[in-house]
Amino acid sequence: MKFSVIHTSSECDARIGSINIGEIEIPTPVFMPVGTLATVKTLSSEEVKELSEGIILSNTYHLYLRPGIEVIEEAGGLHSFMNWDRIILTDSGGFQVFSLNGLTKTNDEGVRFRSHIDGYYHFFTPEKVIEIQIKLGSNIIMPLDEPVPPDASYEYTERSVKRTSNWAKRSIECFRKNNIQRKPLVKEKISKIRNENYLFGIVQGGFFKDLRKISVEEICSIEFSGFAIGGLSVGEEKLKTYEILKFTSSLLPKDKPRYLMGVGTPEDIIFAVSCGIDMFDCVFPTRAGRRGLFFTSIGKINIRNKKYEKDFSPPDPNCECFTCKNYSRAYIRHLIKSEEILGYRLTTIHNLYFFKKLMSEIRESIKENRFYEFSKKILEVFNLQK
Amino acid sequence: MKFSVIHTSSECDARIGSINIGEIEIPTPVFMPVGTLATVKTLSSEEVKELSEGIILSNTYHLYLRPGIEVIEEAGGLHSFMNWDRIILTDSGGFQVFSLNGLTKTNDEGVRFRSHIDGYYHFFTPEKVIEIQIKLGSNIIMPLDEPVPPDASYEYTERSVKRTSNWAKRSIECFRKNNIQRKPLVKEKISKIRNENYLFGIVQGGFFKDLRKISVEEICSIEFSGFAIGGLSVGEEKLKTYEILKFTSSLLPKDKPRYLMGVGTPEDIIFAVSCGIDMFDCVFPTRAGRRGLFFTSIGKINIRNKKYEKDFSPPDPNCECFTCKNYSRAYIRHLIKSEEILGYRLTTIHNLYFFKKLMSEIRESIKENRFYEFSKKILEVFNLQK
Repeated sequence: MKFSVIHTSSECDARIGSINIGEIEIPTPVFMPVGTLATVKTLSSEEVKELSEGIILSNTYHLYLRPGIEVIEEAGGLHSFMNWDRIILTDSGGFQVFSLNGLTKTNDEGVRFRSHIDGYYHFFTPEKVIEIQIKLGSNIIMPLDEPVPPDASYEYTERSVKRTSNWAKRSIECFRKNNIQRKPLVKEKISKIRNENYLFGIVQGGFFKDLRKISVEEICSIEFSGFAIGGLSVGEEKLKTYEILKFTSSLLPKDKPRYLMGVGTPEDIIFAVSCGIDMFDCVFPTRAGRRGLFFTSIGKINIRNKKYEKDFSPPDPNCECFTCKNYSRAYIRHLIKSEEILGYRLTTIHNLYFFKKLMSEIRESIKENRFYEFSKKILEVFNLQK
Repeated sequence: MKFSVIHTSSECDARIGSINIGEIEIPTPVFMPVGTLATVKTLSSEEVKELSEGIILSNTYHLYLRPGIEVIEEAGGLHSFMNWDRIILTDSGGFQVFSLNGLTKTNDEGVRFRSHIDGYYHFFTPEKVIEIQIKLGSNIIMPLDEPVPPDASYEYTERSVKRTSNWAKRSIECFRKNNIQRKPLVKEKISKIRNENYLFGIVQGGFFKDLRKISVEEICSIEFSGFAIGGLSVGEEKLKTYEILKFTSSLLPKDKPRYLMGVGTPEDIIFAVSCGIDMFDCVFPTRAGRRGLFFTSIGKINIRNKKYEKDFSPPDPNCECFTCKNYSRAYIRHLIKSEEILGYRLTTIHNLYFFKKLMSEIRESIKENRFYEFSKKILEVFNLQK
């Protein structure tokens, strides 16, 4: 894995660069669509290739429960299972363990949780989640961390920072010891890409600057291939989040990719890019799409609204995506209201196209040192609606 | 509309031909996928073009209730609404009215029914369903008929034959009086095809040969563009159905397309083709697909079965469809079991591809006078499984 910063904005910390993994080059800042259960919901891998920069996120926790790691391992890994010959980043499952489960028990060894599907108990250790992700053949592996709730006390957060650092060390040791070269498959491109595996570190520290600083120092002293900021997409107050984000990002090494987990909306992405963030993932464009929400060049549109019943114009008047070129607001409204699968597909296709284009325009504007001007335009479109 | 019989089998009444509507040519025998709510479930119109011969069926009853005829009329008709520039056949809604509604009241004027969505009362007359289909811009319009349950008495069936004939006459009068040329749209191909509108007749008569004969005589004395056999896909005993089908089909004029409504399975299609049927529609391949059933060259496969959990071979080892070329049984099983939309799409794509290929092979075998040999192969594959 090679990360290069090509240009840093003259206006702020925003930067463009590229992540090279094997033969694949990912331009940054990049948005990664989420394929929770080895599928970006509604889309084929072929479609996701068109609608992304060739990198997706998939969820260790969900795959562990369904179909189970053994099935994916026997398939030759996740790339092979879902027929995806680009980059896969998998999360550690930590976020799901803590957010989808009322009852978790955490100690220094790891975390015990109940499956949200059948209620069975499972135990994740830092080593176990690394081993799982190695079996998946993930390209960018995330270590187990302990996120804290937004209202966590200083003492609680301090303990979790310490635990996260401790788990980070165990993770890289386990990764170094257990990472493997996999036997060749018939599909050459998949065969190759599966053998490119890297480990990122995750910074925690809640809403306390000094704890964030400690976490950055501890995590960044470990030889990870990139660094993620955790715990900043859990529904906290926006200004506070932005402040912590800016502070934390400024402490991260410049020569490694910076990844803001679980973000976000166009507004949040714009702010984070200005802080020097390079990677994003979020279910929002796809999930909101399935509920009928379009992100467009003129703001958000809820296609279920009665006023679109006989609106035969495209969802976004300035868009060249498959959906906008072929289908009308009235038709998609009918599909979504009738719970027709094509409706979910058409909104998903448009929203991912929109986010891909947004990131591309962000990169272009950074390159040309007019990121502020561009940001202003986007913020006006999306903030005026609120 | 032009219908030509190209060749009749030397072995039976099976025949190949073509239906020409505007610039579009449909080879027969043909299978029409069902797009109930202005969408063949899970697929875009672009995909349906690939997976069909360019003709689909859509349901008047369902479109009337959702999104409502007015919306589709304002869109410039159903072709424009769903971005489909090929042929659309719409049914009369009669079948749905009688099958989806416990309480219908029929008299000579028409039929009163309750919406299965909100329980409101509606009244369909032969004239009304023609007017609706004209507004939809349907290419092949079906008149309102009165299907009878499989166990209907002779007297009841006789009355329904008379009523169906009476309604047929009112339908063609209404069609002649009200059919319109529509104003041009931007999309030229859709603009043209929408103005090609034809009316078929429907033969009823339940399981009484003499009533079927009367119905054929009365319906075929009217100048319809083709003839459908109704009332033979409602779950009756197979041998009895086959007997009535063979008898009725043999009475129909040879120079008009013959359409067997609501059929069917590969076995039923094979038998009907041998009786000289030219057109079929059925939700079975798409609906069963969404439940995980694959039609394959080696028979039916229920992908939910545990034995496919680690089966990384394609659904059909002898298939060139998108699904079989890219995805494994194990992956699709995982998707279907996890209720992932991509799973429903992949089974639908394969099944429609399978039916399209089946019809193409049927036509080829008729052309080469080896339809019996081919049929035997198909029947062995699908009957051995039962």
